[in-house]
Amino acid sequence: MNILFIGDIVGKPGRLALQNNLNTLKQKYRADLTIVNGENAAHGKGLTKKLYHQFLEWGADVITLGNHAWDKKEIFDFIDGADQLVRPANYPEGTPGKGLQFIKTKQKTVAVINLMGRTFMNPLDDPFQVIDDLIKEAKSKTDIIFVDFHGEATSEKQAMGWYLDGKVSAVVGTHTHIQTSDERVLTNGTGYITDVGMTGAYDSILGMEKEAIIRKFKTGLPSKFEVPETERTVLSGIFVSIDDKTGKTNTIKRILINPDHFNFD
Amino acid sequence: MNILFIGDIVGKPGRLALQNNLNTLKQKYRADLTIVNGENAAHGKGLTKKLYHQFLEWGADVITLGNHAWDKKEIFDFIDGADQLVRPANYPEGTPGKGLQFIKTKQKTVAVINLMGRTFMNPLDDPFQVIDDLIKEAKSKTDIIFVDFHGEATSEKQAMGWYLDGKVSAVVGTHTHIQTSDERVLTNGTGYITDVGMTGAYDSILGMEKEAIIRKFKTGLPSKFEVPETERTVLSGIFVSIDDKTGKTNTIKRILINPDHFNFD
Amino acid sequence: MNILFIGDIVGKPGRLALQNNLNTLKQKYRADLTIVNGENAAHGKGLTKKLYHQFLEWGADVITLGNHAWDKKEIFDFIDGADQLVRPANYPEGTPGKGLQFIKTKQKTVAVINLMGRTFMNPLDDPFQVIDDLIKEAKSKTDIIFVDFHGEATSEKQAMGWYLDGKVSAVVGTHTHIQTSDERVLTNGTGYITDVGMTGAYDSILGMEKEAIIRKFKTGLPSKFEVPETERTVLSGIFVSIDDKTGKTNTIKRILINPDHFNFD
Amino acid sequence: MNILFIGDIVGKPGRLALQNNLNTLKQKYRADLTIVNGENAAHGKGLTKKLYHQFLEWGADVITLGNHAWDKKEIFDFIDGADQLVRPANYPEGTPGKGLQFIKTKQKTVAVINLMGRTFMNPLDDPFQVIDDLIKEAKSKTDIIFVDFHGEATSEKQAMGWYLDGKVSAVVGTHTHIQTSDERVLTNGTGYITDVGMTGAYDSILGMEKEAIIRKFKTGLPSKFEVPETERTVLSGIFVSIDDKTGKTNTIKRILINPDHFNFD
Ligand SMILES: [Fe+2]
Ligand SMILES: [Fe+2]
Ligand SMILES: [Fe+2]
Ligand SMILES: [Fe+2]
Ligand SMILES: [Fe+2]
Ligand SMILES: [Fe+2]
Ligand SMILES: [Fe+2]
Ligand SMILES: [Fe+2]
Repeated sequence: MNILFIGDIVGKPGRLALQNNLNTLKQKYRADLTIVNGENAAHGKGLTKKLYHQFLEWGADVITLGNHAWDKKEIFDFIDGADQLVRPANYPEGTPGKGLQFIKTKQKTVAVINLMGRTFMNPLDDPFQVIDDLIKEAKSKTDIIFVDFHGEATSEKQAMGWYLDGKVSAVVGTHTHIQTSDERVLTNGTGYITDVGMTGAYDSILGMEKEAIIRKFKTGLPSKFEVPETERTVLSGIFVSIDDKTGKTNTIKRILINPDHFNFD
Repeated sequence: MNILFIGDIVGKPGRLALQNNLNTLKQKYRADLTIVNGENAAHGKGLTKKLYHQFLEWGADVITLGNHAWDKKEIFDFIDGADQLVRPANYPEGTPGKGLQFIKTKQKTVAVINLMGRTFMNPLDDPFQVIDDLIKEAKSKTDIIFVDFHGEATSEKQAMGWYLDGKVSAVVGTHTHIQTSDERVLTNGTGYITDVGMTGAYDSILGMEKEAIIRKFKTGLPSKFEVPETERTVLSGIFVSIDDKTGKTNTIKRILINPDHFNFD
Repeated sequence: MNILFIGDIVGKPGRLALQNNLNTLKQKYRADLTIVNGENAAHGKGLTKKLYHQFLEWGADVITLGNHAWDKKEIFDFIDGADQLVRPANYPEGTPGKGLQFIKTKQKTVAVINLMGRTFMNPLDDPFQVIDDLIKEAKSKTDIIFVDFHGEATSEKQAMGWYLDGKVSAVVGTHTHIQTSDERVLTNGTGYITDVGMTGAYDSILGMEKEAIIRKFKTGLPSKFEVPETERTVLSGIFVSIDDKTGKTNTIKRILINPDHFNFD
Repeated sequence: MNILFIGDIVGKPGRLALQNNLNTLKQKYRADLTIVNGENAAHGKGLTKKLYHQFLEWGADVITLGNHAWDKKEIFDFIDGADQLVRPANYPEGTPGKGLQFIKTKQKTVAVINLMGRTFMNPLDDPFQVIDDLIKEAKSKTDIIFVDFHGEATSEKQAMGWYLDGKVSAVVGTHTHIQTSDERVLTNGTGYITDVGMTGAYDSILGMEKEAIIRKFKTGLPSKFEVPETERTVLSGIFVSIDDKTGKTNTIKRILINPDHFNFD
């Protein structure tokens, strides 16, 4: 089972980078399943119904989310009918949408989970408790479990990785928008990376116009952040090849395509 | 001017990895200046006088620090006399030690600055204000300015990188203990990486025993963190080659040596 | 049902103020139940077995806790056998001790709950979810439910108060160590105060020596906080008179005894 | 010198409470100077030019602000010309407006300072450093110095109070919107209260509609907060009587006017 995951698509430059590269990447890695984090797809904040369907048309099989899931209000209108959309599982009971989706591929069913960290983030249900229950639920149907852990603190993300080592196929971090270089297969067979990084404007701060963000840090005054118009983009992703029988990761490879790097092999 | 920088040394495994690799790395990169972040050198928290001198003996020219600078009380006894030691510059006036040190190399003098971020960290003086003054001071003596920006949030670190682009030779991040893969030369010639990563135990959480940290996340109860005893280590570093005349970075290369990666070329 | 509650006892001055005033207060208010928050009883951090028993001897019927519950390690040795001790209920399942204790008084049984906020505090289980379950459990035995909500943010504490209005007898805040003047009976009969305040050294910062805390704010350097030796103390409390039939609060009165105030009537 | 201070006016109910009570209070306390915190005056967020002038017409002499100072963009158009308006002094150099204003009264000139805390708040310049400079500036013209310290954490506010004890006439806290009952004259003559509290809707959470805020805590989802329409209001204030010769506070009295309390004497 080959899974291709593309990190947070930020606004138009991110969508362009996705559209331009997704097919090539899917072919190159013979992806059986393609997952895209879409929490910043619409102007850097949230996801619209139109973009959700567009990402599926372009070749994504599942869209994951994060703290920006709810920024475009229309999400509440379509999330409950969207069975290829996964929002952070540790929002309280009664939250629209699902935190775990089972996706059928040619070979096997894959359980895709989206989960959020709490350190330096808003309070949510305990991800370490929630994941225990989700794994039980997933295991009843499949051994291939893929977790997008959307978190800020490297400590919490590494802790989740090690906590899930041997229990799920892969744990890939999102949210910081900067790719880390620590991809590896942990001791008990779980593929891990602290952060996949984002997909969007390259000469930017986390995908947004850098001037406004610098001004915010310099002045402390309110500042409106916009997605820049640019064709200089970065695409950040991760590829995991999982053993269908054991559900363990054999190989994990970082993908980074920007004007300075062209990392994929 | 070739500068080699090694990320946060965490306890004994970190010191071993440093000792075992430093000479080889210095030769390989023909380092004119070697900088080591030592904020976690002593049992994961702080720096002793003995270790400060040991790192210099092993080949470091400058030691930088961070939020853990003060964890071993003896630092207050030797920091004022230690002219190869740099603590975060944006502690308030009157703080022992210096945030900028001028280091002579065979070719030129290098200004080495240590600075701390504030997002998700304790309050300190504004690093964006403080760096303006430090650059003025540095420029009076040299055009080669190297900044270790010790911060948590990727937004603040990228903002600092772009803010200093063209004003300093290089801005390298530390503190998250996980190396990022976004090393690059920014538009106006400043070498940049969001985080160099740490040097220490490989099968760990940020260099500390993973069990205690997972327990802390699972229970919320107080937990004592220890550095594990292990020979499986990671060494994380960055190399920048700077043009002596312009003070701009020509090349920036990540260094990552662990059982899964052997990135240096 | 008359309930007397005394806010966080901080170290020796707090214990003295408790010992000197408790009997008088109990008599004056004809207290049927006396609750004392003891999270800072031992040197400002945590509670020992000895002090737990001492507070009971002095006339307390129940001791509540907070984020400092675990600071003295011996708590783990006696908390499970201590049926007049209540720790924050929203620690995860499996945490030693109980977050709800039923206490028999001459008239009726009272359910005493300790709960912690999350805003500006460490992650815990959602207090708004946890309290729903606890109320169900409590209601099976009694209509008199008293909640010590240990939190930092005024927004979260007021939100909890209004959320529980009409569902419990009283919600009294602790943790900020400063008494608020907003005691009232909410629209549906729940007694409420944002913070009861602490009991300890009067010329102090939150009960601790002021010099070290000012130094910490001024320097950003590590600083050891001690409880001062003093006989100038403040005792902070709240009194609620509850209708035994309805479980609603009839009257709520602040108690504040310090060299400048002598508020109890 | 009698100074009357009214805490954060929140939206229309707050403005009504101010209008209805200000004259009576000024007369009752023979106020020589009246200060109103206006950071939440316009729909709960920010201050318009119209409201600034209205507050002056109603009898205020100075308006102070806080973290919400900049929420209505038009503030940038009039703040520099508004010499009875004070914004937090510890925004960085170059910020529009002033953090210290000298106000002439019949007897003496009063220096009014607005300052912000940093604990649990956004990064700003160090208030403990900034206040030292401001006091120097103020002392050159007057011995009557009044500080509105806008902060969240009780520790930081008490620390500021004690730090300034004997250096300024009074330090009154704002921002938490809940009045504390710890008003006192500190050892060296400085009047102090941790928080004056807010002026606005009484059956509310910090002056805003309680339902939306409870929903936010319960769901973690984005929620729009509105000021309720109501005539049940609370007015929170503080009165300090200062010795003109020494600049020390003789008396400090809390003012709290709501359907449950009518505290002023
Ligand atoms: Fe994102
Ligand atoms: Fe995110
Ligand atoms: Fe470190
Ligand atoms: Fe650090
Ligand atoms: Fe406490
Ligand atoms: Fe507490
Ligand atoms: Fe306010
Ligand atoms: Fe405020």
